[in-house]
Amino acid sequence: MTVLVSGWVAIDDIETPFAKVERSLGGSATCAALAAALFSEVRLLAVVGEDFPAEMRARLDRPGIDLRGLQTIQGGKTSRWGARYHYDLNTRDTWYPELGVSVAHLPPLPPEWADTTAACLGAGDPKYQRELMHGLSAPRVTLVDTIKMFIEEAPEELRETMRHADFVTVNESEARQLAQTPSIARAARAMLAGGARGVVIKLGEYGAAFASNGDYFVAPGYPLEEVIDPTGAGDAFAGGFIGYLDTVAVVTPAEVRKAIIYGSTTASFTVEGFGPSRLLTLTRPEVEKRYREFRALTHFEAGE
Amino acid sequence: MTVLVSGWVAIDDIETPFAKVERSLGGSATCAALAAALFSEVRLLAVVGEDFPAEMRARLDRPGIDLRGLQTIQGGKTSRWGARYHYDLNTRDTWYPELGVSVAHLPPLPPEWADTTAACLGAGDPKYQRELMHGLSAPRVTLVDTIKMFIEEAPEELRETMRHADFVTVNESEARQLAQTPSIARAARAMLAGGARGVVIKLGEYGAAFASNGDYFVAPGYPLEEVIDPTGAGDAFAGGFIGYLDTVAVVTPAEVRKAIIYGSTTASFTVEGFGPSRLLTLTRPEVEKRYREFRALTHFEAGE
Repeated sequence: MTVLVSGWVAIDDIETPFAKVERSLGGSATCAALAAALFSEVRLLAVVGEDFPAEMRARLDRPGIDLRGLQTIQGGKTSRWGARYHYDLNTRDTWYPELGVSVAHLPPLPPEWADTTAACLGAGDPKYQRELMHGLSAPRVTLVDTIKMFIEEAPEELRETMRHADFVTVNESEARQLAQTPSIARAARAMLAGGARGVVIKLGEYGAAFASNGDYFVAPGYPLEEVIDPTGAGDAFAGGFIGYLDTVAVVTPAEVRKAIIYGSTTASFTVEGFGPSRLLTLTRPEVEKRYREFRALTHFEAGE
Repeated sequence: MTVLVSGWVAIDDIETPFAKVERSLGGSATCAALAAALFSEVRLLAVVGEDFPAEMRARLDRPGIDLRGLQTIQGGKTSRWGARYHYDLNTRDTWYPELGVSVAHLPPLPPEWADTTAACLGAGDPKYQRELMHGLSAPRVTLVDTIKMFIEEAPEELRETMRHADFVTVNESEARQLAQTPSIARAARAMLAGGARGVVIKLGEYGAAFASNGDYFVAPGYPLEEVIDPTGAGDAFAGGFIGYLDTVAVVTPAEVRKAIIYGSTTASFTVEGFGPSRLLTLTRPEVEKRYREFRALTHFEAGE
């Protein structure tokens, strides 16, 4: 059981209403890899520049994460991402101090990784996401994430990619934008009608909704008293979700629902620290404990 | 088993991005009474002006709603409320074309209603809400709703009232305002620390959170493909919540959780029509069916 994680390994500047960190380890693939590694073996496929600090690479160099796919582009700079969060932490302004190597260099799948059983493909060029999926000989579960930029600039390519993946994750505003409707349920249905097979709409602190042609599932957010930094929560969700699914015997609707709760649980830990910092210390028993709490917090009995 | 419902019976002008209705039956007590009447017997305590149309009164005059407490103030005008909803229907501008009799006339509890077993007190003067509760000889469950105006203008009176009620309902922005924190979980805890005994934070389409000193519960919103008008959803929640609790043998934490789902279910129907229109045709079997759907939509199995 192995999960291919692709996306950005980046250096982030993050400012919340309460604190600020500069030049810290970040990126979609970083968070997704650390989350998936709680459940399965991870193969990380990403690029960094020559400036990528050895100390940051060392933090990713841990049992369960294969870093042979983390390539250094000679003469290149590591991508950088900046975010400033508003008071309620649900909205943010983002910018790119350095677009870096992650945009121009899309590393191909190493041939020896064709036997990878699962894929968690961070937001990126939808055509590239498709190439990676095609490179896998018999994947059991595949997930693609996307962002506004690709919805706007490559809608047809994105639709084609969604048809090839088992799951696509979008946040609420992206779902509304993709489907041109304010209703989350209708947006999910529109994405299914467009050929997506499993749609996860991430609702931030409000949880997540999932739709496939056979199932609809809604989960509230895990209630947190303190959110330090929402960065990476969506990526940790995707990593936890696919990491868990990679370990199940058969991917049933019930397992997908569990995977959503595992993803939400992993994400809930992520926001307790800046960037991926909490994920670096998180353990599977902690995840299981919170999963049980999640269940207790949401249980209600049958009606009349 | 009887539920005292107090609050506004009003005439509303409502505009959504998709449609507009003018001079239609509205008001917090109207929606709460219709919702509570799905579960228990309702005693409606409210005032209207001489201009209140007989046709509107006739719509409230139904088995299960005692209208002897709906008083016409001679020479007075019925209160009017206007709302214009934004594109995502989560935010609105409100105004008062006619403040009317509901502000100046706070009808006392008829002495013969002292034996009412439950109370659902719509947003209003917190001192008046307390007087109503004190007038009940042995209420089993009491709920008070409030709005921004009273949080700002009568915070101390409101806090005192919250200490006297079993449950207080607020929406998300009101909770944040009351507790001066962006975290919903922390806002709930702060309200409990201030003496509230049961806090329901209504999250609109995202569901609800409940906190007491012994329990915390989170429920997602029921996924709707089409929302016509969110007006009255919070009042229908309160009415359904208390209406159900009024019928249970013992008010246990498990029953409170069920009541939140009944409230959410009732609210989810409400937004399918303008103002209380859907509530006027809603039946208990429809509520039970959606409650079962709610359960199916949110169920997930135990983890490892």
